[in-house]
Amino acid sequence: MEKWVYSFKEGSASMRDLLGGKGSGLAEMTRIGIPVPPGFTITTRACIEFFKRGGKFPEGLKEQVLEYMKKLEEETGKKFGDKENPLLVSVRSGAPVSMPGMMDTILNLGLNDETVEGLIKKTGDPRFAYDCYRRLIQMFGNVVMGIPKEEFEEILEKYKRLKGVKYDAELDAETLKKIIEEYKKVFKKHTGRDFPQDPYEQLFMAIKAVFNSWNNKRAIAYRRIHGIPDDMGTACNIQMMAFGNMGWDSGTGVLFTRNPSTGEKKMYGEVLLNAQGEDVVAGIRTPMKLEELRERFPEIYNQLIKIAETLEKHYRDMQDIEFTIENGKLYILQTRTGKRTPRAAVKIAVDMAREGIISKEEAVLRVSPEDIERLLHKQVDPEAEKNVIAKGLPASPGAAVGKVVFDPDEAEKLANEGEKVILVRPETSPDDVHGMAASQGILTSRGGMTSHAAVVARGMGKPAVVGCEEIYIDLEEEIFKVKDIVVKKGDIITIDGTTGEVMLGEVPLIEPKVGEELSILLKWCDEIRKLGVMANADTAVDAAKALEFGAEGIGLARTEHMFLGPERVKIIQEMVLAETPEDRKKALEKLIPMQINDFMELLKVMDGKPVQIRLLDPPLHEFLPSVEELMIEIRKLTEKGAPKEEIERLRKLLEKVRKIQERNPMLGFRVCRLGIVYPEIYEAQARAIFEATARLIKEGYNPRPEVMIPGTMHVNELKFLKRIIDKQAKEVMEKYDVKIEYKYGTMIEMPRAALTADEIATVVDFFSFGTNDLTQTTMGLSRDDAQGTFLPIYIRKGILKEDPFKTLDVEGVGKLIEMGVKLGRKGNPKLKIGICGEHGGDPASIHFLHKVGLDYVSCSPYRVPIARLAAAQAALREKLEKKS
Amino acid sequence: MEKWVYSFKEGSASMRDLLGGKGSGLAEMTRIGIPVPPGFTITTRACIEFFKRGGKFPEGLKEQVLEYMKKLEEETGKKFGDKENPLLVSVRSGAPVSMPGMMDTILNLGLNDETVEGLIKKTGDPRFAYDCYRRLIQMFGNVVMGIPKEEFEEILEKYKRLKGVKYDAELDAETLKKIIEEYKKVFKKHTGRDFPQDPYEQLFMAIKAVFNSWNNKRAIAYRRIHGIPDDMGTACNIQMMAFGNMGWDSGTGVLFTRNPSTGEKKMYGEVLLNAQGEDVVAGIRTPMKLEELRERFPEIYNQLIKIAETLEKHYRDMQDIEFTIENGKLYILQTRTGKRTPRAAVKIAVDMAREGIISKEEAVLRVSPEDIERLLHKQVDPEAEKNVIAKGLPASPGAAVGKVVFDPDEAEKLANEGEKVILVRPETSPDDVHGMAASQGILTSRGGMTSHAAVVARGMGKPAVVGCEEIYIDLEEEIFKVKDIVVKKGDIITIDGTTGEVMLGEVPLIEPKVGEELSILLKWCDEIRKLGVMANADTAVDAAKALEFGAEGIGLARTEHMFLGPERVKIIQEMVLAETPEDRKKALEKLIPMQINDFMELLKVMDGKPVQIRLLDPPLHEFLPSVEELMIEIRKLTEKGAPKEEIERLRKLLEKVRKIQERNPMLGFRVCRLGIVYPEIYEAQARAIFEATARLIKEGYNPRPEVMIPGTMHVNELKFLKRIIDKQAKEVMEKYDVKIEYKYGTMIEMPRAALTADEIATVVDFFSFGTNDLTQTTMGLSRDDAQGTFLPIYIRKGILKEDPFKTLDVEGVGKLIEMGVKLGRKGNPKLKIGICGEHGGDPASIHFLHKVGLDYVSCSPYRVPIARLAAAQAALREKLEKKS
Repeated sequence: MEKWVYSFKEGSASMRDLLGGKGSGLAEMTRIGIPVPPGFTITTRACIEFFKRGGKFPEGLKEQVLEYMKKLEEETGKKFGDKENPLLVSVRSGAPVSMPGMMDTILNLGLNDETVEGLIKKTGDPRFAYDCYRRLIQMFGNVVMGIPKEEFEEILEKYKRLKGVKYDAELDAETLKKIIEEYKKVFKKHTGRDFPQDPYEQLFMAIKAVFNSWNNKRAIAYRRIHGIPDDMGTACNIQMMAFGNMGWDSGTGVLFTRNPSTGEKKMYGEVLLNAQGEDVVAGIRTPMKLEELRERFPEIYNQLIKIAETLEKHYRDMQDIEFTIENGKLYILQTRTGKRTPRAAVKIAVDMAREGIISKEEAVLRVSPEDIERLLHKQVDPEAEKNVIAKGLPASPGAAVGKVVFDPDEAEKLANEGEKVILVRPETSPDDVHGMAASQGILTSRGGMTSHAAVVARGMGKPAVVGCEEIYIDLEEEIFKVKDIVVKKGDIITIDGTTGEVMLGEVPLIEPKVGEELSILLKWCDEIRKLGVMANADTAVDAAKALEFGAEGIGLARTEHMFLGPERVKIIQEMVLAETPEDRKKALEKLIPMQINDFMELLKVMDGKPVQIRLLDPPLHEFLPSVEELMIEIRKLTEKGAPKEEIERLRKLLEKVRKIQERNPMLGFRVCRLGIVYPEIYEAQARAIFEATARLIKEGYNPRPEVMIPGTMHVNELKFLKRIIDKQAKEVMEKYDVKIEYKYGTMIEMPRAALTADEIATVVDFFSFGTNDLTQTTMGLSRDDAQGTFLPIYIRKGILKEDPFKTLDVEGVGKLIEMGVKLGRKGNPKLKIGICGEHGGDPASIHFLHKVGLDYVSCSPYRVPIARLAAAQAALREKLEKKS
Repeated sequence: MEKWVYSFKEGSASMRDLLGGKGSGLAEMTRIGIPVPPGFTITTRACIEFFKRGGKFPEGLKEQVLEYMKKLEEETGKKFGDKENPLLVSVRSGAPVSMPGMMDTILNLGLNDETVEGLIKKTGDPRFAYDCYRRLIQMFGNVVMGIPKEEFEEILEKYKRLKGVKYDAELDAETLKKIIEEYKKVFKKHTGRDFPQDPYEQLFMAIKAVFNSWNNKRAIAYRRIHGIPDDMGTACNIQMMAFGNMGWDSGTGVLFTRNPSTGEKKMYGEVLLNAQGEDVVAGIRTPMKLEELRERFPEIYNQLIKIAETLEKHYRDMQDIEFTIENGKLYILQTRTGKRTPRAAVKIAVDMAREGIISKEEAVLRVSPEDIERLLHKQVDPEAEKNVIAKGLPASPGAAVGKVVFDPDEAEKLANEGEKVILVRPETSPDDVHGMAASQGILTSRGGMTSHAAVVARGMGKPAVVGCEEIYIDLEEEIFKVKDIVVKKGDIITIDGTTGEVMLGEVPLIEPKVGEELSILLKWCDEIRKLGVMANADTAVDAAKALEFGAEGIGLARTEHMFLGPERVKIIQEMVLAETPEDRKKALEKLIPMQINDFMELLKVMDGKPVQIRLLDPPLHEFLPSVEELMIEIRKLTEKGAPKEEIERLRKLLEKVRKIQERNPMLGFRVCRLGIVYPEIYEAQARAIFEATARLIKEGYNPRPEVMIPGTMHVNELKFLKRIIDKQAKEVMEKYDVKIEYKYGTMIEMPRAALTADEIATVVDFFSFGTNDLTQTTMGLSRDDAQGTFLPIYIRKGILKEDPFKTLDVEGVGKLIEMGVKLGRKGNPKLKIGICGEHGGDPASIHFLHKVGLDYVSCSPYRVPIARLAAAQAALREKLEKKS
């Protein structure tokens, strides 16, 4: 017979998979002497077996539960269902992976019409006892029997109004008795049966409900969002009740061992007196701060702090601790690794490493690349004018702009259509999570810093302002009001989760800077990682930003912009219109001096660091006006009676534009094909690069240009172009009498290039995978077209797990990259290999790219810190994998 | 010291690489007792060495030549440079691979002012002797010294006019002496020196010229067209002159052992009396037929026929024999495998196999797939009205339509721009070959069936009409005239190389039928080949054609056309406009009955054979009118005051068309993506297929439908769609109470599908590589866009060897196919694998596809015979490779 049940004394932290996070945590705490209300855990295996048997308990489970209940009675000296000294228990879910608030909890089990009298006798507090009973019926009714919460809440509210009180705790025993009677009627009306009076019937029904909660809609949604497998199952914890609602010397609270928002090394918590735990999380009343607890109950405060310190040291991470004070006695209900803002994650990791609690490597692994990404979330431009209409709690930092939406489903729908939205709710519940995930940010009018909205938003890294009591939300009308301002659905607001400010309209946002702790963490990353991190930057300004974020060079400097701008665009049009190579050359020669300047600035900023300059890539029509624009322009000029030559020029241009229109420009006349058909273009670009290099060398700089050919599909393209490039280099070197060290490389962005990488590698010094285009060609997916049509449907229908333009399609495109790397190194053992597609800044992709042995990744400057961390983590994980 | 020189008695046929085709042939003939004028051969190695040494003779060569000249003098009893009995020799090139007319020949070497008198003494024929001398100066001047032929021709023509004669042979000795004097002046004027009088100086200069001719422009062009390597070198043959121009009992001729045009087993040849060999090939005079020779010189005729029979048996193939009659004595100058028309190739191969001369396998290898392709060239529709303006010799069969062009360069240029042209020339020369290659067909006003134009056109499989003396060509004016008809450059004509007819305008052409011999040959192919051959056919009519050509099934039945046609297009528009799956279903249900009918017809024709039906593939916008069309239509209807609903419908349609426009439709919302986003469409198609199948089963047929999903990139697509297809099959089977055996497969046309073929194979019964799209995606090449822009330039610049849409890119796309096959078989050992892109009918590609182990190829019905032959040859060649 399998052992389905473990008492807290039997378990430990290492049994998380079997006992769940909560269960193994309670066991571990018990093991190290923390005052935990006694109890036991039904294993996750029992839950899995329960589902296998189609919702029936596995054999022997009931017997084991009964046996452990006996033991619990012995340990507590109370008896389950006893009229004199009744044992009350909580039944809670607890999966191996934390899913806060996602699954169900029932408190006060064991109460019935008889035992409630026993509780009164024992505590001498009928108000408390009836309140417990009322809560049991409500929770049981809602969680186990599926009766809508509102049915109970309405009754409660009615009596609160009747009695003119604000808090539940202010209701007297008589009123509560009446409420119980009404609750029972609701129960009967909905279920067709009376509220069960047999405590064991209550218990087993509750266990079933907890198991079933593993597969409720919101739990499934949560698992989908967080990538948690469906077959883990949840454990079920049965624990003696400790009452935080036993009067004003009782209470319930949450404590973070460090500040979860800033990471500051200072205990941070909230207590709600005379209340049960669910009240805190639900954010129904605004709780008191830990400092107040110290003043009012210094002993308890000191005990709590000591325990918190023990727990943090024991678990070697910031803890999120739930506690209850029952008539002055402190119980720890739960501890877990605390969720934190990205800012806090970085600070805590770095602090703990500096305090010697964890190693640098652990610190690096503690911060997720997503944290850095969120940390580098946009902020409100301090220079910007802003119309602040309200201020709430700064629950999750970062600023967001979007249209106001009140309904989570609508938020999701609009987001799917590409709209940016801010979800505005009185408070949030697990039912709203999908809408929160789809929004830019969250604004609530109720709840504290540990309310559902705050916790979830921090977990998601979404900006959130909560408990903004100044605003009044009318869900019916879909508006919210602040003083005399009315904000309607669809109006744009800006929220700042760092300050708590709510602003009307769109306020300009800016990119943030790397702070001190992050700076330290990233330096540690640099020591650990093997992948180089370069940046995609086209201009000296971008390059400077890239350097600031720690880029080791430029992995992609596009040259398209050098053909734009009002003075240059006419020249480029002249070039496109040219009938002969000579005319094209003449046009290009006008561009060279300007481009030399561009390249000099870029190479100067990156002095001593490699700069991979990609020659012209986009199809020529991108430099020309559209057919429509030209037709309108010609009509206008004709009406105005403009000079004939100008109209003629535009006519010719129109003709050319029509001629070079393509059916599939993505697969058309672009990339190095331009340089092969019109060698003059690449000649001019190479000329400008080498001229810039030579001049900088003369000025005493150390420029390191690397010429990168886009869109190769055949080694012959590279051979052909190499002759052109080398010739320019040679001429410039002779002209300036300097030696230019440059590299010659290619982007690998057509499958054929990866497939024939061995040949291609013999001609070049480096490869740079262009995974945007490589994904398009390998999957036959036009990014522009797919995003708006079938790609979202593919993801919704589960055909693709994620957007392959965000995270590299490892099985398909990745396989091609792996081939390209192996073949490339075979063809040229000295080959340097990197990536400059957007995946270069995506942590999951970086992990793969490290594994296949790339030399570097290149990404946008703002993603450089993310890449540095992800690269370090990839190296550390590989080490760990090798060890195990 | 390397042996650079071999006498004809020392060599044999097996020494072709060393002695060249002509040299080894002369040696072989000498070996088997054929009357060949004695001589010797300088090896190809000497030529290669000559180029290595920068145009200097290798060491020892001169000495060896002198030694062999001595031997030749002994053998012939004549002396080189002798005043009494001078030995005259020819010097000819002869490469290991036949390059007819490409390289140079000099005749009558050894003549000078003194020896010419010796020749007169010896022959008593001053006219002949001076004519020889004149010819030597002309050829030597042109070939060795590079003096334009015209300079000599003008002088000759002048004297012919003066003397009022038509043929060169009619000029008397005195006149020829004058001509010689004028020739010498021309020689001196151009070269600054006198015509060399030293016979050995003549000889060594001629040998150098022959070597150098290996690298002349037309030889290089010929090698490029025919894929002959540049480093083979040519041998040089020095041979006693036999004179066909020694009077009217002398002559020179060409004989084919079978008819090179029809393949008929009947000697076929032409003789030009009192002429030298070059006169025949140049097509300057129209020669007499072999039958005439029999009448006039029966003994020589009989000897010739006997020799020809010997040679054909010896070489086991139809021979092309050059001979000379010198005062009634027959010399064989050369024999080689005769070029032939495709029709003759097939007939000769089949006949020879039936005669027991060669095996069936050899017969199959003797015919090239290109032959079959050409054999199946278009013919003039016998029903068509035609305006025949002239008739020439039917030199190369097949019909062609095109614009008249007179200049070979222009022909090439226009062809590159996509124009179809007919090259019209008085006669052609090796300088015109590039223009001939670029033309649809060739028309000449002069020359016989063995003229340059005729031989080359037959080799290329181009229709040609030659010797069409009725037409007068004015190259200056770029017109030709027949009677009072003037045809200008750019006018369209039709020529029929099978009948010799020249027609004005475009006459409709039809596809030909498979004849008796080809039928036999293809049956032999079917016994040999391992690759299955299926056809791409969408309708019952196409399918019947495919069966006629020997297809074993349908490898690609597109279903797009079933959505077209005036009554269907409205339904499809309704479907596209539908807002809900229900509305889409309603529209589709109207199509199902029509489609059931389509599928019934197709499956009935292919009864018992597999029919791979590809579900809808093109993007939906292809079924809708364009934005422009709709705008015009709406404007029209509005002006007419048409009903509002109709205008509204078009407005909606316009809006939809605008919405579904894509930037890269090739990579967009098409293929199975349609079936996944709108499952109703594939549901309806599957329904129609299975309904048709069930009904046919009920009628007693054996339909074998195979459902083919286009454009897969991920195994999940196939899983998703399999459920839909299987459900329809199940429903239909239940409805009709029949068992339907169907297969489920996919096209592999995205690189990702090939890369993950192992996974994909687990879900399907067959793969069909769609190499058109696979080439587009693998190479990042839009076929539509590339053909008109950079692809021709890529081929011209040598970056790509050939159009990858015609012949499979083996190194790139082929690698992916190989991976796909290996992975696919790994994932599903029973997997059937084929190809249905256009490469399925391309011989070079078929060879590769056989090698990588495909099960079948599928191509257009007209290419089925080509594929059958190519597949058999692939199997035979593999056997041969394994043996060696």
